[in-house]
Amino acid sequence: MTPINASAAGSPTGRLQQQDNVFIHPWEDLAALGGNHRTIIARGEGIHLIDTDGNRMIDGPGGMWCVNIGHGRREIADAIAGQAMTLGYFSPWAVSAEAPARLAARLAAAAPGDLDHVFFTTGGSTAVDSALRFAFFYNNLMGRPQKKQVIARIGGYHGSTHLAAGCSGKLSEKRHMDMPDGVHLLSCPKPLLRPAGMSVDAFCDARVAELEAKILELGADRVAAFIAEPVLASGGVIIPPDDYHRRCLDVCRRHDVLYISDEVVTAFGRLGHLFASEAVFGIRPDMITLAKGLTSGYVPMGALLISDRLLRDIAGAGGDARVFFSGFTYSGHPVAAAAALANLDVIERDGLLAHVRRVMPHFSARLRALADLPVVAEVRVIGLMAGVECTLDAAHPHEDRDYAFTLRVDRHCQRMGLLVRPVYNMCVMSPPLIITEAQIDRMVDILRAGIEQAMAEVAAERRASA
Amino acid sequence: MTPINASAAGSPTGRLQQQDNVFIHPWEDLAALGGNHRTIIARGEGIHLIDTDGNRMIDGPGGMWCVNIGHGRREIADAIAGQAMTLGYFSPWAVSAEAPARLAARLAAAAPGDLDHVFFTTGGSTAVDSALRFAFFYNNLMGRPQKKQVIARIGGYHGSTHLAAGCSGKLSEKRHMDMPDGVHLLSCPKPLLRPAGMSVDAFCDARVAELEAKILELGADRVAAFIAEPVLASGGVIIPPDDYHRRCLDVCRRHDVLYISDEVVTAFGRLGHLFASEAVFGIRPDMITLAKGLTSGYVPMGALLISDRLLRDIAGAGGDARVFFSGFTYSGHPVAAAAALANLDVIERDGLLAHVRRVMPHFSARLRALADLPVVAEVRVIGLMAGVECTLDAAHPHEDRDYAFTLRVDRHCQRMGLLVRPVYNMCVMSPPLIITEAQIDRMVDILRAGIEQAMAEVAAERRASA
Repeated sequence: MTPINASAAGSPTGRLQQQDNVFIHPWEDLAALGGNHRTIIARGEGIHLIDTDGNRMIDGPGGMWCVNIGHGRREIADAIAGQAMTLGYFSPWAVSAEAPARLAARLAAAAPGDLDHVFFTTGGSTAVDSALRFAFFYNNLMGRPQKKQVIARIGGYHGSTHLAAGCSGKLSEKRHMDMPDGVHLLSCPKPLLRPAGMSVDAFCDARVAELEAKILELGADRVAAFIAEPVLASGGVIIPPDDYHRRCLDVCRRHDVLYISDEVVTAFGRLGHLFASEAVFGIRPDMITLAKGLTSGYVPMGALLISDRLLRDIAGAGGDARVFFSGFTYSGHPVAAAAALANLDVIERDGLLAHVRRVMPHFSARLRALADLPVVAEVRVIGLMAGVECTLDAAHPHEDRDYAFTLRVDRHCQRMGLLVRPVYNMCVMSPPLIITEAQIDRMVDILRAGIEQAMAEVAAERRASA
Repeated sequence: MTPINASAAGSPTGRLQQQDNVFIHPWEDLAALGGNHRTIIARGEGIHLIDTDGNRMIDGPGGMWCVNIGHGRREIADAIAGQAMTLGYFSPWAVSAEAPARLAARLAAAAPGDLDHVFFTTGGSTAVDSALRFAFFYNNLMGRPQKKQVIARIGGYHGSTHLAAGCSGKLSEKRHMDMPDGVHLLSCPKPLLRPAGMSVDAFCDARVAELEAKILELGADRVAAFIAEPVLASGGVIIPPDDYHRRCLDVCRRHDVLYISDEVVTAFGRLGHLFASEAVFGIRPDMITLAKGLTSGYVPMGALLISDRLLRDIAGAGGDARVFFSGFTYSGHPVAAAAALANLDVIERDGLLAHVRRVMPHFSARLRALADLPVVAEVRVIGLMAGVECTLDAAHPHEDRDYAFTLRVDRHCQRMGLLVRPVYNMCVMSPPLIITEAQIDRMVDILRAGIEQAMAEVAAERRASA
C-alpha cells in the first residue's frame, strides 16, 4: 500500500531495504513480503524527515500523529540519556522511582475532573486494553459480572491487541482477523454521511439516539463501557457534531455505562490543549487513554487515567484485597517517564499549546481552500489535524475507500518534499505542533500541487485509454 | 504485598512516595491505594540499586528478569541519546529506518531454524498477544477458521493484555479478572508436584500425554497453538523434565498445532545463550516471543519471531492481499532498536554468554546449598535464574502459596543489602548477568541470613503465643 521506492540492491539504501524486508511492518501484506522497498529515513529535524538518499520532506503525519514537539530535540536526548545512566529500569511491582512518580502526579494535576490516578502502559493499544480490563474488573467487584458488553463506533480506531482491535471500527481492517465477543459498533458519527436533506443537528440526534437504543437493546445492566476518540483520527479525522460527546456522556451516565475517552491522538496539544475531552468537548470521562504525544513518540509509553469515583467505589466494595492483576514489565518505565517529563517541559516552556491555538486558523484556512479542487470531497480540520478526502468516483464521493488516487498524490508529494502516506482515500495532515505559518504554507502548497499532478496524471491516462 | 517502607511525610523520600501513590502499580491492591509507601530507587550501578535514602542493594530479580547487562551502562545511554537526536521516531506504517532494519536482520540471523522474520511490539504482553492473533490469522488464511483454541499451562505467565492474560496459568491472579474464551490450561509441569513414588520420567510421560489428550479432546482441527515458557519464570522458576519440550513439540507437529515458545525471560543470556529454545531445550518452535533482555529493560520493546514456513504457507494460500492488520505506533521503534543493538553489542563484546555459562555452576551450587534450611522446600536453578521455595507448612510443603514467610525474608534481606521481592512463597533470584562469583557469594550469604532471621522471628512469635 506504500509506493515502491527501490534503490539499487548494492547501494547503502538498497542494503538497508534488504535488511528491512526481514522486519514485518504494521499492516504488512504478507503476500508481498520481501518486496517492499520502503523509504529509509535517516534523520529528523524539526518538522522534517531526511531519507538515506538525502531527500528532505515535511513530516505530514507527524510520525504517526505523535511527534508533537518535533524531531531532533536535544532536551529529550539529554533527559533519556541522563535517566538511563542514573536508573534505566526498576521493577514497578517491587519499588518505584522519581520520574514516573513525578509524571503521574503531573498528569493527574493536569487531567480533567477527578481523573487523579494513572496506570502506565506501553502504548495506546495496551492503554485501551487495560481500560477495558479495568471496566470488567470494576463491574466484577461491584457485583454485576454480567455488565461486560462494550460499545464502540464504525470508523474508530483503538489499537492492536486482540481486545483493543475488537473495539476498532475500521471494518475492512478486520478481514481475516479474529475479534473478541461482546463489542458492538455504532454508525460512524461523520456528518458528511448524513442523508440528503438531514441537518447536522438531526444527524447528531440520530447518532446519540442510536447509542441509547443500543444500550437498551443490550440491556443497560449488560453494558460496561462506551469507548470513543474525541475525533476519529485514523478513520480520517472525523469530527462529530457539536454536543455529540456531551450528549453521549449524558446517555452513559443515565445508564451507568463507563465513558472511555481515547485521547491517544488528541491529547498533548494536537487540539491546542493538554487534554481535549473537557477543554474542547466539554466532557469529564471516567477514563482517558493516552500515548503518542505523551512522549512525542521518542520512547514508547501509554497511560490510562482513572477517575477517583471508580476507585472509591472499589475501595467501598468491601471484602478482602482487590488486586487489579494487570500491569507490564515496562509500566512507569523511568526512561519513558523522563522523556514524557522533558516533553511536557518543552510544551510548557515553548508555549506550544498557545502556538497551536495561534496557527490553527491559518492551518484550517489554507487546508480548507483545497476544497476547490474537483477531486476533493471534503476537508475536515480541527486543531492541527486535517483530513483531505479525495475521490475519483463523483457519483459516490463518500463511499470511495481505496488508495487509487491518494497513492498518486503521495508519490508526487514525496518527490516535492512532503510525506503524506494516505489513509485510504484521505490525505491526513498531523504535523509536529511546532510548525510555523510559513511551513504550513509550504506544506499545503505541495499538497495542492501533488493533488493537481495526480489529477493531471489520471486525466492523461483516461485520455490514453479512451 | 510489598513491605511498608514509609519515610517521614515531609522528607524528600516521603514527598516522592506521596506522588507515587497516584501511580497505580502493576498488581496494585486498590483497596489499599494510597497507603503503599514504596521504596524509591534513586540509582542503579551494575548489579546494585541505591534507594533515595542511600541504601545499596543487590538487585536480586534483575529488575523484572530483564536488566541483563546491568544498571548504568554508558553504551546504552549514548546509543539512545544518539538515536533520539538523529531520528527519535518514524512511522513503521509509512517508512523504515536503519536501527530496526539492522536489529531485525541480526535477530533473524541469531534465531534458531527458519525463524527469519521479526514483528516488533512494545513488550512481552503485546508479543504474546500478537503471536496468538497471528496464529488465528494464519488459520483463517489456511481455510480452517475453526482452528482457534489455545493450550497453555497452570503456572505459566504470558502477560497482561486480555488475550495474553488468558493464557496465564497463575490461577489466583485471575480472580475478578475476565478471561477470553478458548484457552485451556494443562497441569503444571513441575516435577516436585508428582505423586509420591512416581519417577520424573513417568511424570514427564504424563504431562506430555496430557497435552496430546487435550488436543484430541478438543479436536486437533480446533487447536491453533500451544504456548509455553521454556522455564516457567514468574510461576517460580519451574523447570520441566528433560525432553518435555521436545516431546511436546513432537505432539504439536503430529497434530498441526503451532508451538509458541515464550522466551521473554529465557532469551538474551539468562540461560547462557541468546535463545534457549534450541540451545538448551532442543526445539525449533514456530514462533518465539521476546522482550525484557532484548534491551536489558532500558527501553520498552518486544518482538515476535515467525517461522518462514508459516509465511510461505500464507504466501501460497492464494487469493488477494493477505494483510496482517496488526501493529503498533511503536513497532520497530528506533530508540528501542538502538538500545537493543547496543545491548547485543555489549553481550558480544563482553562475552556475557560465556560468562554466564562460567558462573552458572557456582550460582547453582551456592543456591542449592540453601536446601539444608528446614524452611526451604526446594531450590530450583537453571542458568542464572533460581527459585527458592519456602514453606512454614511442613505437612503440605508444596501447597503453600502465600507470602507469610517470604515477606519476612524480603524485609530482612533488604535491610542487609539484597532486594528479593518474593513471588508468593518463592524467593526468586535473577540477577544481572554480569554478576561475579564473589557477588553471587554475597547475594546468597544475605539470602541465607534473611531466611535464618525470618525463621528465628517466626519461632520467637510462636513461643510468645504458645
